[in-house]
Amino acid sequence: MRDLLPVEKARREQVLEHIRQVYRSRGFQEIETPALEELSRLTSGQGGENEKLVFKVLKRGEELDRAMTDGSELADLGLRFDLTVPLTRYFASNHSKLPRVLKAVQIGSVWRAERPQKGRYRQFLQCDIDVLGDESELAELELITASLAALDAIGITNATIRVNDRRVLARTLNSLGITAQERAMIAIDKLDKIGLSGVQEEIEQTYGSEVAKSVAEWLQQTQEMSIPTELSWISKLANPSKVRFDPTLVRGMGYYTGAIFEIEHPSSSSSIGGGGRYDNMVGKWSGIQTPATGISLGIERILDLLGESEKDEKSLVLLVEDDYAAALKAQAELIEQGWKVRIEKAAKNTKAQLSELSEQGFSSFTQFKPGEKLDIRKLG
Amino acid sequence: MRDLLPVEKARREQVLEHIRQVYRSRGFQEIETPALEELSRLTSGQGGENEKLVFKVLKRGEELDRAMTDGSELADLGLRFDLTVPLTRYFASNHSKLPRVLKAVQIGSVWRAERPQKGRYRQFLQCDIDVLGDESELAELELITASLAALDAIGITNATIRVNDRRVLARTLNSLGITAQERAMIAIDKLDKIGLSGVQEEIEQTYGSEVAKSVAEWLQQTQEMSIPTELSWISKLANPSKVRFDPTLVRGMGYYTGAIFEIEHPSSSSSIGGGGRYDNMVGKWSGIQTPATGISLGIERILDLLGESEKDEKSLVLLVEDDYAAALKAQAELIEQGWKVRIEKAAKNTKAQLSELSEQGFSSFTQFKPGEKLDIRKLG
Repeated sequence: MRDLLPVEKARREQVLEHIRQVYRSRGFQEIETPALEELSRLTSGQGGENEKLVFKVLKRGEELDRAMTDGSELADLGLRFDLTVPLTRYFASNHSKLPRVLKAVQIGSVWRAERPQKGRYRQFLQCDIDVLGDESELAELELITASLAALDAIGITNATIRVNDRRVLARTLNSLGITAQERAMIAIDKLDKIGLSGVQEEIEQTYGSEVAKSVAEWLQQTQEMSIPTELSWISKLANPSKVRFDPTLVRGMGYYTGAIFEIEHPSSSSSIGGGGRYDNMVGKWSGIQTPATGISLGIERILDLLGESEKDEKSLVLLVEDDYAAALKAQAELIEQGWKVRIEKAAKNTKAQLSELSEQGFSSFTQFKPGEKLDIRKLG
Repeated sequence: MRDLLPVEKARREQVLEHIRQVYRSRGFQEIETPALEELSRLTSGQGGENEKLVFKVLKRGEELDRAMTDGSELADLGLRFDLTVPLTRYFASNHSKLPRVLKAVQIGSVWRAERPQKGRYRQFLQCDIDVLGDESELAELELITASLAALDAIGITNATIRVNDRRVLARTLNSLGITAQERAMIAIDKLDKIGLSGVQEEIEQTYGSEVAKSVAEWLQQTQEMSIPTELSWISKLANPSKVRFDPTLVRGMGYYTGAIFEIEHPSSSSSIGGGGRYDNMVGKWSGIQTPATGISLGIERILDLLGESEKDEKSLVLLVEDDYAAALKAQAELIEQGWKVRIEKAAKNTKAQLSELSEQGFSSFTQFKPGEKLDIRKLG
C-alpha cells in the first residue's frame, strides 16, 4: 500500500477524469459499492486465486467472543479483491431500481494480501466498465469502442486488443481430445512465459504425449487462423485493425463464458487491461440468469506509461508578508480571473521556497504588496 | 454500508468535483493515503471514542498461526476511522518530499463499526482540508474562506461557522475553578442536547455544587461575550458575518489545541462540518513538532441538503434495431457534437424503456434508422 504525493495524485485524478468523461459520453453510468463484502461471498469460488488473498475483517463484540470460544470463523467481512464480484452482487441486490441493461462504470480500490514486491501493491485502483443484461454482441462492441476511446483521450493511441472466445477455445480443445479442460487452459495461458515446448510438456503430464503433440501442432498454426463466427462482430468496429483474434488467449478466471479481451501496449510488457463475458455470475447470487461482460483498465500500469502532467499555466504563488485580509481579497479576485492561487508566507529563503513550489506544479509567482499592482512572473 | 445507485453516484461526483475545483483554485493539493493503517496507530489514543469502532484486519499466514497459538493480538491492520490520523502519519512519512507548508485536500472513505441505525453508515465519505506546517492565523483564515467558498459553489449559501478556541475554553474553566477539565468539557459539549440544567447537574457530580453554579452563570452570559484575542483573526475574513464566536463550543476530540470550528446550516439539525487546530499530533509520529489545523465537510449530510441534480440537456438515448456498426458511427458523431449518447436496443415496450431511461437522467431520444436524418425528441 502506498501514499500518493500531491503531484502523483493530481496526475491520477486528471487521467481518471478524462476516462470518466469518455465513458459518461457513451451513456455508461458510474456506480459505487462498499469496500467490504460478506466474506462468504468473496470466498465462494468465483475469484480464482484472488480468493486466497482476501484481507479478512475480524468479527466484533459478542460474535467475536463466540467465535473465539467455539472455534468458528473469526472473520465475517472482507475487503473486495476486484470490482466484478461486488458488481454482480450489486446488480442482484438493486435489480428493481436499475435500468434493464446496466452499463456501469466503477472506479475504486481493491485489496489483495500479496507479499510486497516491486510494482505490486496491496491496495490498487481498478477502473471497470461492464454491461449487464445484454446478451448480444452490442455489449462487446460498446466495451471495446469505449475502452479504446478512453485510452485515446489520455494520449494512449497505440493500444491494441487481443480477443478470443471461451466457446471457441473449448471447441478447439475438444477437437484435440481434451474434455476436462481446466489444466490445459492453465498451460496454454502460460504460452508467453514458458514457450511452446513448455506448454507441450505440461499438457503431456496431464493428457499424454499424443494429445500434447496435437496441441503443439495447433499452437503453431494459430497465426493464420481466420476469425470464427462467434467473433464476427469484430468487423463492425469503427477501427477493426486495433483488434486482433488470438486463438491462444485464455485469461485466468474460471467464470468467463464467451468473448475475452486483453489490452496491449508496445511499451508495456504486461497487459494494460482485460476482461470478458461472464454470463453465469449474477445468476449465482440472484437466481436470475443475467448476461454480463466487462473490461477493466489497469490504471497503475497505464499511469506508468504516461509522463508527468504539464504545469498549469494559470497557477500562481502569492507571496505575502502579514497583511492576510488584503491577500485573501487579492486571491479571490485572481481566482475570478481564472487563476489558481496559493497564498504563501514569504520564507527567509524565498528562492528555495519558490523552487519547491515550482516542483509542485506552480508556474508563476508574485510578491504581494497591498495597494500595489501585481507583478506576475514565471517560475523556475 | 450501502450501494450507490447511478443517479446518487452522479450527484455525489458532481458535488465533489465542484468542491475539489474550489480547493484546487486556492492552491490546496489533493493527496491520498491507503484505507488500511497499522492497528497500533489507530488505537494509540488520538481518536477518542472512534478508536473503539475500528474494523480490524486479521493477520495472515504464519503470523496468524502464531497469534492463535500464543494468544497475542489477532489483527495487525485496521480500516481508518477518519482522515486526520492517516494525514499526520502521511506527513511524518513523506516529509522530505512535501512542500514545507502542506495544504492538503483529502476525499476518501472512512469506516466505523457502528451499530446499523438510520442515517449512520459504517462506510462514509469525508472531505477534509488541512494546513500542516503553519502556526499562524493565515491557516485558519484560509480554511474558513475555502470551506465557505466550496459550500457556495454547490449552492449552500447560508451556512455559518461557529468558532471557539480551546485555549480560551481552558482559561475560562480555570477561572471557574476547574483544573482537571476533561469531564467538564464533555458536559458542556452536551449543552444542545441536555440543556443548561443538565450540564449543571453533570458538573455538580464531578466538581461540586459551587463550581456547577459558577459554570451555569457563565453559560447564561455567553451570548454577550466579545471576541477574545486568540480569535481576533475573524475580523480579517472577507465576510466575518458568516462566522460567530461561541464560547461554549467544545468538539469531542481530545487532540485539539487551538481554534475549533463547527459548520451549521439552518436546514440541518446537526453540523455539516467541523474541525480545529491539532498542533501536537504530527509530533507524536515524527518527533518533529508540526502545527496543523483542518476542516472536514460532512458530505453525506451536505448531500441530504441538496436536491437532485438537473437533467443533462444534451443527453440522448439512441434506440437501435440491429445495425450496430452504423449506430456506433452515429454515436461517435453525436459525441463530437457534445452529446452524451446511450445506445439502447429498442425493447418491445419502448414507452416503458424510455420512461426508465428518463428516470436515469436522459433528456432526449431518437429512433435510429441508418441513412436517415436523426429526429431528436424530448423525453418524459
